[in-house]
Amino acid sequence: MAASPRRVVLAYSGGVDTTACIPYLRHEMGCEYIVAMTADLGQGDELEPVREKALKAGADVAVVVDAKERFVREFGFPAVAANAVYDGQYPLSSALGRPLIADLLVGLAHEYDCDAVAHGCTGKGNDQVRLDLAVALLDPRLAILAPARRWGFSRAETIAYSENFGIAPHVSKEKPWAIDLNILGRNVEAGLIEDLSWEPTEEVWALTQSAEAAPAVPEYVTIGFVAGVPVSLDGEPCAPLDLVARLNELGGRHGVGRVDMIENRVVGLKSRELYEAPALTLLLQAHRELENLVLPADVLTHKAPIEQAYAKQVYDGLWFGPLRQALDGFVGSLQQYVTGDIRLKLYKGVSTVVGRSAPKSMYRYDLVTYGPESAFNQDSAEGFIDIFGLPSRVWARNHGMVPEPELA
Amino acid sequence: MAASPRRVVLAYSGGVDTTACIPYLRHEMGCEYIVAMTADLGQGDELEPVREKALKAGADVAVVVDAKERFVREFGFPAVAANAVYDGQYPLSSALGRPLIADLLVGLAHEYDCDAVAHGCTGKGNDQVRLDLAVALLDPRLAILAPARRWGFSRAETIAYSENFGIAPHVSKEKPWAIDLNILGRNVEAGLIEDLSWEPTEEVWALTQSAEAAPAVPEYVTIGFVAGVPVSLDGEPCAPLDLVARLNELGGRHGVGRVDMIENRVVGLKSRELYEAPALTLLLQAHRELENLVLPADVLTHKAPIEQAYAKQVYDGLWFGPLRQALDGFVGSLQQYVTGDIRLKLYKGVSTVVGRSAPKSMYRYDLVTYGPESAFNQDSAEGFIDIFGLPSRVWARNHGMVPEPELA
Amino acid sequence: MAASPRRVVLAYSGGVDTTACIPYLRHEMGCEYIVAMTADLGQGDELEPVREKALKAGADVAVVVDAKERFVREFGFPAVAANAVYDGQYPLSSALGRPLIADLLVGLAHEYDCDAVAHGCTGKGNDQVRLDLAVALLDPRLAILAPARRWGFSRAETIAYSENFGIAPHVSKEKPWAIDLNILGRNVEAGLIEDLSWEPTEEVWALTQSAEAAPAVPEYVTIGFVAGVPVSLDGEPCAPLDLVARLNELGGRHGVGRVDMIENRVVGLKSRELYEAPALTLLLQAHRELENLVLPADVLTHKAPIEQAYAKQVYDGLWFGPLRQALDGFVGSLQQYVTGDIRLKLYKGVSTVVGRSAPKSMYRYDLVTYGPESAFNQDSAEGFIDIFGLPSRVWARNHGMVPEPELA
Amino acid sequence: MAASPRRVVLAYSGGVDTTACIPYLRHEMGCEYIVAMTADLGQGDELEPVREKALKAGADVAVVVDAKERFVREFGFPAVAANAVYDGQYPLSSALGRPLIADLLVGLAHEYDCDAVAHGCTGKGNDQVRLDLAVALLDPRLAILAPARRWGFSRAETIAYSENFGIAPHVSKEKPWAIDLNILGRNVEAGLIEDLSWEPTEEVWALTQSAEAAPAVPEYVTIGFVAGVPVSLDGEPCAPLDLVARLNELGGRHGVGRVDMIENRVVGLKSRELYEAPALTLLLQAHRELENLVLPADVLTHKAPIEQAYAKQVYDGLWFGPLRQALDGFVGSLQQYVTGDIRLKLYKGVSTVVGRSAPKSMYRYDLVTYGPESAFNQDSAEGFIDIFGLPSRVWARNHGMVPEPELA
Repeated sequence: MAASPRRVVLAYSGGVDTTACIPYLRHEMGCEYIVAMTADLGQGDELEPVREKALKAGADVAVVVDAKERFVREFGFPAVAANAVYDGQYPLSSALGRPLIADLLVGLAHEYDCDAVAHGCTGKGNDQVRLDLAVALLDPRLAILAPARRWGFSRAETIAYSENFGIAPHVSKEKPWAIDLNILGRNVEAGLIEDLSWEPTEEVWALTQSAEAAPAVPEYVTIGFVAGVPVSLDGEPCAPLDLVARLNELGGRHGVGRVDMIENRVVGLKSRELYEAPALTLLLQAHRELENLVLPADVLTHKAPIEQAYAKQVYDGLWFGPLRQALDGFVGSLQQYVTGDIRLKLYKGVSTVVGRSAPKSMYRYDLVTYGPESAFNQDSAEGFIDIFGLPSRVWARNHGMVPEPELA
Repeated sequence: MAASPRRVVLAYSGGVDTTACIPYLRHEMGCEYIVAMTADLGQGDELEPVREKALKAGADVAVVVDAKERFVREFGFPAVAANAVYDGQYPLSSALGRPLIADLLVGLAHEYDCDAVAHGCTGKGNDQVRLDLAVALLDPRLAILAPARRWGFSRAETIAYSENFGIAPHVSKEKPWAIDLNILGRNVEAGLIEDLSWEPTEEVWALTQSAEAAPAVPEYVTIGFVAGVPVSLDGEPCAPLDLVARLNELGGRHGVGRVDMIENRVVGLKSRELYEAPALTLLLQAHRELENLVLPADVLTHKAPIEQAYAKQVYDGLWFGPLRQALDGFVGSLQQYVTGDIRLKLYKGVSTVVGRSAPKSMYRYDLVTYGPESAFNQDSAEGFIDIFGLPSRVWARNHGMVPEPELA
Repeated sequence: MAASPRRVVLAYSGGVDTTACIPYLRHEMGCEYIVAMTADLGQGDELEPVREKALKAGADVAVVVDAKERFVREFGFPAVAANAVYDGQYPLSSALGRPLIADLLVGLAHEYDCDAVAHGCTGKGNDQVRLDLAVALLDPRLAILAPARRWGFSRAETIAYSENFGIAPHVSKEKPWAIDLNILGRNVEAGLIEDLSWEPTEEVWALTQSAEAAPAVPEYVTIGFVAGVPVSLDGEPCAPLDLVARLNELGGRHGVGRVDMIENRVVGLKSRELYEAPALTLLLQAHRELENLVLPADVLTHKAPIEQAYAKQVYDGLWFGPLRQALDGFVGSLQQYVTGDIRLKLYKGVSTVVGRSAPKSMYRYDLVTYGPESAFNQDSAEGFIDIFGLPSRVWARNHGMVPEPELA
Repeated sequence: MAASPRRVVLAYSGGVDTTACIPYLRHEMGCEYIVAMTADLGQGDELEPVREKALKAGADVAVVVDAKERFVREFGFPAVAANAVYDGQYPLSSALGRPLIADLLVGLAHEYDCDAVAHGCTGKGNDQVRLDLAVALLDPRLAILAPARRWGFSRAETIAYSENFGIAPHVSKEKPWAIDLNILGRNVEAGLIEDLSWEPTEEVWALTQSAEAAPAVPEYVTIGFVAGVPVSLDGEPCAPLDLVARLNELGGRHGVGRVDMIENRVVGLKSRELYEAPALTLLLQAHRELENLVLPADVLTHKAPIEQAYAKQVYDGLWFGPLRQALDGFVGSLQQYVTGDIRLKLYKGVSTVVGRSAPKSMYRYDLVTYGPESAFNQDSAEGFIDIFGLPSRVWARNHGMVPEPELA
């Protein structure tokens, strides 16, 4: 980047950090035109006040974009199709939002003729990586400014810096941890949570009840998929946003979807993270179960590393890269077969599969039953084992404890 | 095998099928000397009556072998070290017993100068494969006889066949499913369970209470590992058998360790299986969590397919083969580092990790904390992202929507 | 299959075995209507005499199908796109032909209202598996008859059997090995080749000269790809069949594309196989090199196991199954980027890459050069290494030989 | 690192760059005591003059260490056992030397009570990463100084800088590329080689003749392995260093072991590299072939990704990390079986396997032969295919073009 960028789109949340970014971009980083962009991914805040706050903090333009529907359709559901779970536990609720935010930033940068985008991430987390890479993949000409990676302010200093410019950050009472929320889930990290011996108290959770507080009576839900996409609840067609909202509410009530894990960050750290993602948890469970019903074993075996690679690509911020697209080529070619219904029982923090049906199920009663009506030819078993076991017999002849006579 | 085998060791359980095998081996398959071997893997039956039953059914010799300790130490704990879970759910409780039974059969075959071993498995299940392959790997000279794969009897015909020889099989009231039990878990399959729309009723379970019936108060347990092996509960040293028994009791009381799954059998079928494995479930959860604490991310990433391959080898009956041994070479080289304590909370069917500690933990508060005492150098982040993102920038230059100026 | 099949389509080559199949199907296996199908995959025989021979041997109908173009376009080129090589050496020339033959058999079975297909494969090879599985995947209602898997004839007995029915098999002088040939390559196995100490003499090879006999002057060729498909030679557009023929001729002249390998068969045997596949070898080399130029490293890393799985699916006869299709979903999503030219030098049995160019190359002189004009930011290296090496430093603190002071 | 390091061990080659490092470390980076360490890995230079040059350039101590034997035994042969080849082509000749150099640096740092090590690598290559990570893994307390990553000198400026301190770098005539050489191979990069359209001329190669210049008569060699380690040539026992030297000479004479490739560097660049590694190439080919003879197919299938991961760990500089050790746990458990002889024919740039023998070969003539003496039970084939093909038949019933009657 030859000269300093002068026109920038900032990802603006209304919080202390991104608010301070506005004067910092203008006064310390030489930006002359600042567009504040707030994406509605279902974080639940009223966003018109956030927009006004950006203007008061000095943004030239402030824009709110409702991206909830795109978020669920274009990012959430494909990740469910890929059974994407990072490190075995994290359903990627926050990570999936970053490429969408980057896409909105880049779109506005083009619209407002900007040469840079900016965000308020620090240098230790994953989100800086995700936003930087997503922007680079969408438009590598855009400079990326990250004031909070540079300024070295404590929280108090950040507030003071804003106040110097007459900006009252309307600081809410500081929580002893950091929160990220969207319609696919909630993430809590830092502060008390960094102490591994601290068992989270209820105040840290917001979308889910504890198992103890969950209803004493189980509840059931049937999720219907067509071609890998969830389309119905209990047999009723259900639009994406509504489906996710209802599963969040249902799962949350029964304490389903809490995660407390040690996670391997992009930047080489292990961190402790808490997640609540009721809808995503239920959708992933149901989708995986349905795939197990309709896809053959060898496909499932080869899909496992694809799923892990997919989750890592999402986690690392490479959504728009060619590897994620290629992995989706694999995943996508199979989704046409993933049609059916999975029935779940929710009770005291657990969701259990209690029913499975699919018009193209590979489970075949007529084959599996031990009853006399079985279509399975048991005579084939000996031939199968003879040949399946042939390398083992040769191996044992060579390396067994026994002398070698002729091979049986 | 040129001539018919004449001396055989039979894996004998005391049930209807293996009882009928005794006369069948003698009268239909030409065996003149039959050793009945009953292995005690913790199935909980009194085995002296079983031994006597074998003799009454015509066995020349009947032997009971207490193999519980070997089972846990040599098969159970190594599988925990490998985080071995088949198809994402089955902790291999039954599968792990088969190679041990095969080893006992082969040992007795040598001791009693037999030229064959026999078992009562049918042609549709996994156990025939596992026993056949394990025997082949241990001594490929031994013929393997499987009367039930040949005879084509219904259950009533099997009983009638035995009665023809004056053998009263003391048939217990027939359950509408088939059960396999050992100290590591219990498996229920066939019968009603083959109907996917049937939600298991409580009578099908034996080791675990339902979540509904579980205590209203959570219980905690801390499992301590040294070098990958579980050695203590709540800080008290605990011998292998006792440790497994106590975790079975504890997990069972809280409804932990139930599985209801569609499984991909060796012989190409999908079948529905129910498992109860409280101790194994808790040990696997704790071991996996501890590994996540003490091993770096790249090791965990590469260990995942190793674990899946390991589980498949066990499931397929290839315990004694070179691939399982090589996978254990990978797993084993890492276990020296897996020392620490994992604290679990059990409540209403779920076990949750609530505490983690390890003297050689890779989680480092001084690195991860966002506070001012952090040892993490945030300045490195930009350099890291610059280089980590370099291929993405080149890619986007080539394939992005944008014209190509110089590369930033 | 309740009753015996009565109407069958036979894959007919004109050789001793498939000729004997005709009377055998009619007289031993109860077929009343026999369609002989001979596919032209470029084996180079005149096929009208083969067709007449089938009729003389008793076929009711005999059909020759020219499938060369389909073979190259629909099977050969996709396998090149997947860099499909089995066991590291075999370019799958024969294996790729089997699903196509199966497809033709099934098509004719439908056309002639047959309820079975037949082939002349024995029970030890791969081709029986490939044909059986391909037919099963295309139409599982069709019975599959394999006389040679049943009859147990020696070659002399096979000839005698035909002669009993007045069929003179016009046996050519028997070669001391078995040959399979098509436009993508030639396979020689069995007989002398089964002796591992035998170094093949020149008479065993047909498509390639020895390195010793190859010209003393090297020759060059540039293969051009568009979207993963080879489309030109030395800059001239070239249709698929012509392109393959010219590369076979060129490579063969220079001794390129010979393979002498120990191969792992589907049925659990290791066998020794000789292959000649000059065109396929050159195409695979060029395609792989071009991908290395235009795809990022992480894509290549994840593509490697995909390629191996793809080759195994083809080898095992599962071309028409869902896993091959899903693997092609991955491969296919990347081929749009695989456009460019690879220049090869052929000399004395070797083909060497001597030129590479691609409009969207990821090799960037401006980045890689050590000269002063480099766009690579060396300052980023220390930040990158700091973070890339962070887990190693934590690991060494925990497990190194040294006492632990603060972490640098 | 609190204060500046004052005592440092420098990896010293005698070249322009590492010579300039000596004054630079003292005058610009505050080092008061400098140990110059030159490792003899078989680069072929006389090293006593190099040692003297270090002292003249201002080193306080200069040490030469003969590490050739360790290099071959502890790094080269284990990499052969792992079939470690990076990006499909690079046999890691240079990369394997870096951890050994790091180990020597760290050992001397401890011996001379130093608090830092230093090297002359720039910020664009792999070697900086390898040395930095290896040192971090061995002793993370040591600071790592890399003057050439900081100084930004052109070559002329580097020479001028040394001359300022009265050091005449005895600059040899500059080659238009950069060379690295040790007993396992030679690497040439940069300069002219960065131009992909440039076909290397003969002057760039040193260890190998061109195929054109190679003898007109082929030569044969038999490499014998015991437990995965090469121990003999043509049946004669041969010590490691001698064995490598003889294979380098032999392979080089016949033009075997040249590589010209596009390589994916650790730091995200694609670079073009030339390698010559005759001995390593022959050893890798023979070892791989022998493994194919003595190990079962499933082991080979699972070993492939292990080998790739191993090569990447070596390439990335993580030799001393836990992942490489775990991968070696897998590889190492199998080497006990890798005993036998592979005969190679070398001619005009190619090495071809022409003989294979192993006392525990899994190739079994009695099984594979099509002759009447075969021990393979062809009757088993139908049972095997029936069960191996079962999922395909179910799949085709569900998704085939045909209506579903009963399952055959």
